[in-house]
Amino acid sequence: MQVVNLEEKLAQFSDRWSPKIVGEVNDAQVKLVKLEGEFVWHHHEREDEMFLVLKGRLRMRLRDHDLSIGPGEFVIVPRGVEHLPVADAETHVLLFEPRTTLNTGNVVNERTVAVLDEI
Amino acid sequence: MQVVNLEEKLAQFSDRWSPKIVGEVNDAQVKLVKLEGEFVWHHHEREDEMFLVLKGRLRMRLRDHDLSIGPGEFVIVPRGVEHLPVADAETHVLLFEPRTTLNTGNVVNERTVAVLDEI
Repeated sequence: MQVVNLEEKLAQFSDRWSPKIVGEVNDAQVKLVKLEGEFVWHHHEREDEMFLVLKGRLRMRLRDHDLSIGPGEFVIVPRGVEHLPVADAETHVLLFEPRTTLNTGNVVNERTVAVLDEI
Repeated sequence: MQVVNLEEKLAQFSDRWSPKIVGEVNDAQVKLVKLEGEFVWHHHEREDEMFLVLKGRLRMRLRDHDLSIGPGEFVIVPRGVEHLPVADAETHVLLFEPRTTLNTGNVVNERTVAVLDEI
């Protein structure tokens, strides 16, 4: 059991769109990710996903509207809902989702990270 | 689906040791709680608990040592591990735990909050 400092963990990587595992709680994982630019439209069949913004701003595009999430704010994208994360500038996000969650959900392409690093 | 601002939610209550539900992700709940003083020794039989400190400082007493958790830091207390949360001054914490988790774990006393408010 150890104390995890988010800033220290974030300082350990710089790649974008590649979530790192920083904790495990029951059947869920806590991940940190740095976002910049536009991801891919996807959804998760069976998993809700929580995005807590630590720095920057996350624009979560949905099929009928967009959400804007700033530092100290979170959004939970329910299973089945198509979404496209966009970050106009570097954005740091804490993710909370089941360990089964693939970053690109139902889509598998060059953005897919099948095996996540644990830091 | 909505954007949740942690500060706005925290401004809606002032009672201590009474977690409020602010989100649901799969079989887990996101809760906010204000701590001040000492809680009760307890453990959770089947649930890991995540404590992410937003403000103040949480001292997590364990049977053989203490952990000190400041803003931007978290600790995950695994199931079965006895712990006693202590906050010398007002401390705000985001909790991540299964919806089945009782705040006092295996102990039921006047500090137990059986039904949590959703805010």
